[in-house]
Amino acid sequence: MSTKGKVIKCKAAVAWEIGKPLCIEEVEVAPPKAQEVRIQIIAVAVCHTDIHIIHPKNTEFNFPVILGHESAGIVESVGPGVTSFKPGDKVIPFYAPQCRKCKFCLSPLTNLCVKIGSFENPLSSQNLMEDKTSRFTCKGKSVNHFLGISAFSQYTVVSDTNLCKIDSDVNLERICLLGCGFSTGYGAAINTAKVTPGSTCAIFGLGGVGLSAVIGCKVAGASRIIAVDINSEKFTKAKALGATDCLNPRDQQKPIQDVIIEMTNGGVDFAFDCVGGTEVMKAALNCTTVGWGSCTLIGVAMDSKEMILSPLEILMGRTVNGTFFGGWKSKDSIPKLVTDYKNKKFNLDVLITNTLPFDKINEAFDLMLQGKSIRTVLTF
Amino acid sequence: MSTKGKVIKCKAAVAWEIGKPLCIEEVEVAPPKAQEVRIQIIAVAVCHTDIHIIHPKNTEFNFPVILGHESAGIVESVGPGVTSFKPGDKVIPFYAPQCRKCKFCLSPLTNLCVKIGSFENPLSSQNLMEDKTSRFTCKGKSVNHFLGISAFSQYTVVSDTNLCKIDSDVNLERICLLGCGFSTGYGAAINTAKVTPGSTCAIFGLGGVGLSAVIGCKVAGASRIIAVDINSEKFTKAKALGATDCLNPRDQQKPIQDVIIEMTNGGVDFAFDCVGGTEVMKAALNCTTVGWGSCTLIGVAMDSKEMILSPLEILMGRTVNGTFFGGWKSKDSIPKLVTDYKNKKFNLDVLITNTLPFDKINEAFDLMLQGKSIRTVLTF
Ligand SMILES: NC(=O)c1ccc[n+]([C@@H]2O[C@H](COP(=O)([O-])OP(=O)(O)OC[C@H]3O[C@@H](n4cnc5c(N)ncnc54)[C@H](O)[C@@H]3O)[C@@H](O)[C@H]2O)c1
Ligand SMILES: NC(=O)c1ccc[n+]([C@@H]2O[C@H](COP(=O)([O-])OP(=O)(O)OC[C@H]3O[C@@H](n4cnc5c(N)ncnc54)[C@H](O)[C@@H]3O)[C@@H](O)[C@H]2O)c1
Ligand SMILES: [Zn+2]
Ligand SMILES: [Zn+2]
Ligand SMILES: [Zn+2]
Ligand SMILES: [Zn+2]
Repeated sequence: MSTKGKVIKCKAAVAWEIGKPLCIEEVEVAPPKAQEVRIQIIAVAVCHTDIHIIHPKNTEFNFPVILGHESAGIVESVGPGVTSFKPGDKVIPFYAPQCRKCKFCLSPLTNLCVKIGSFENPLSSQNLMEDKTSRFTCKGKSVNHFLGISAFSQYTVVSDTNLCKIDSDVNLERICLLGCGFSTGYGAAINTAKVTPGSTCAIFGLGGVGLSAVIGCKVAGASRIIAVDINSEKFTKAKALGATDCLNPRDQQKPIQDVIIEMTNGGVDFAFDCVGGTEVMKAALNCTTVGWGSCTLIGVAMDSKEMILSPLEILMGRTVNGTFFGGWKSKDSIPKLVTDYKNKKFNLDVLITNTLPFDKINEAFDLMLQGKSIRTVLTF
Repeated sequence: MSTKGKVIKCKAAVAWEIGKPLCIEEVEVAPPKAQEVRIQIIAVAVCHTDIHIIHPKNTEFNFPVILGHESAGIVESVGPGVTSFKPGDKVIPFYAPQCRKCKFCLSPLTNLCVKIGSFENPLSSQNLMEDKTSRFTCKGKSVNHFLGISAFSQYTVVSDTNLCKIDSDVNLERICLLGCGFSTGYGAAINTAKVTPGSTCAIFGLGGVGLSAVIGCKVAGASRIIAVDINSEKFTKAKALGATDCLNPRDQQKPIQDVIIEMTNGGVDFAFDCVGGTEVMKAALNCTTVGWGSCTLIGVAMDSKEMILSPLEILMGRTVNGTFFGGWKSKDSIPKLVTDYKNKKFNLDVLITNTLPFDKINEAFDLMLQGKSIRTVLTF
């Protein structure tokens, strides 16, 4: 019996308020409206950005909300006007829409798109569908979307600008990492920093994003990859993926940037912040070489809205840049990344340390917060 | 009678202490040592960087010093080992040495050179010759060099890495601007920001550096050049050089960045700080567009060592970079800029608003501080 056109009742993890665990609830998912697609989520991983939202330091988000944005699924039904998707298609939804019409989409210089809504507040700007309503209801209350995806639900509705079809022979429980963490870290190295062969790189933070940046630096041909984390348990994996040196700032007598500057005789060519603290961002910039050092910001800073830099270090040839979803134009690029994955250009399976049933989602959050997982993939 | 090998007594402007006017003195200029060249300065312009040094906010400089770094002259004599210069050569000295041997010189990515000495303190790092002594004495006291040049002296000694020979048919009283201001502003647009045809640019500060950035943006084909200064008297010249819009922040109801964002429907492609205050740097960054906005720092910040930026504005695709001497590899590029000048690719004569005899150097400083000059050229 087709569910098309009908409200679907299913399981979802609702974040009712800040600082509280998610609640597994039965939610109602309305049918897709024009240019929308309803998806059955098959696998969803936890990214630190999901955690940021329920973190008590965050005060700008509208609750309740269904989080989750690193996922893969199957099209259940499509709304009026949708021509490029049909029920049964395997898809990856993403929070970096590509409408292919706006000035950003038409520019080769960026992967932003006006459909993001607010560039000042990208984390909360896609929390309703384009008609300013939600497709989710729980206990009679409207529940917000998150990043245009809300994959912590068995079914979700996304705009057709926010997903792409992928080959039918890929394993959704792995490829879901292309929805955020892998694509972001890998793309930061490949697209944003444009890491060059033979270069020296420093990566701060070895979670899913940071390890993917390690992979990106390796694929780009970096000859030295310095991996930094305050949790030394992350080093085995970093080394397996190509890190040549691993440093724990807590084991050092000097500030980490000074250690790296000494090790590299003047600083690295490329540095990446994959943590999201302004102090780490500063250290990442400081440890780059004069002349051409490039510091790429990836982490979402929740501690402060202000990063401090010294104009003089910039005058001496350093560059600060940043990445949103690794710089990938999503619809154009994700299918190609799927092909690269199938061709074993990179290994993302190694990033998946845990798989859990969806109901254990709070355990997945805890594993990340305790530094015990890279990615936990939840399945329904 | 040749002066070669002898101490030359001549006129110089000595900065004895911070916050005080320069004093015209008779100084002794020792002969050039190995790999050094003694130059007769024919024309020297005042740049704001000279003023920074005697500004009371600056506490890091060793006095006494002979300032001056935007000049042109004629080789008087050369020290042992110097093969590429001979007495009578017309030359431009520069503070961006090019030894052609160090890792920076060998890299196409930068115009820095190890001969700068300290990259943390570039303003004071070339205040002695390579053997850690000065060639200047005044009243029995050793007087420091400045930026490896010290052009506020009728004769000076520079390392042969810090000058280039130029065509004998150019007017030194004009071409001296290639020694700093023009090359810096113009190069910031051409080399550092790499301004693209049809782009929109905002230039903060319309002194010699800022107006040269206007020229650079124009030569690069920018279609809109927004010139910003708190002194509206600078606008006539800015317009003559290609500025399409001129804004005085003091005439605006809103912060200048907001005005520019509105005017450009979202922000400029390229912004330049040609002032040197951290607040202006922040405004320059803020007024660039999401997606690909580039903010180039040129000004030397004396108000604070800290520029504050929001990591989120960087994540949304903006870049902060900076320039030292406009990114030109000096020995390779300055002779080419001389040719471009002769071929009228740009007009730097218009930047010279005043010419004064050398003795009136403090008047030249005052003219700049009062906003009444762009460049004052001093002649002996
Ligand atoms: N720009 C984007 O498009 C984008 C996309 C995805 C994630 N993010 C952000 O990237 C960051 C990383 O995400 P993740 O999922 O990999 O998180 P994660 O929690 O898995 O990894 C973070 C790592 O940083 C380490 N760390 C913490 N403090 C540190 C310090 N001071 N120095 C060095 N290492 C430190 C932790 O031990 C951990 O290993 C988050 O801020 C997330 O919000 C940004
Ligand atoms: N990076 C380098 O290699 C390099 C080289 C040369 C000069 N500089 C620096 O560039 C800066 C400019 O030098 P210059 O010789 O052109 O100086 P200048 O004094 O001739 O020009 C500065 C201009 O900025 C304007 N201004 C001041 N405050 C302003 C504000 N808040 N908003 C807008 N405009 C403002 C002034 O009215 C003036 O017109 C200085 O800081 C100088 O030290 C850097
Ligand atoms: Zn994410
Ligand atoms: Zn678009
Ligand atoms: Zn060199
Ligand atoms: Zn100067």
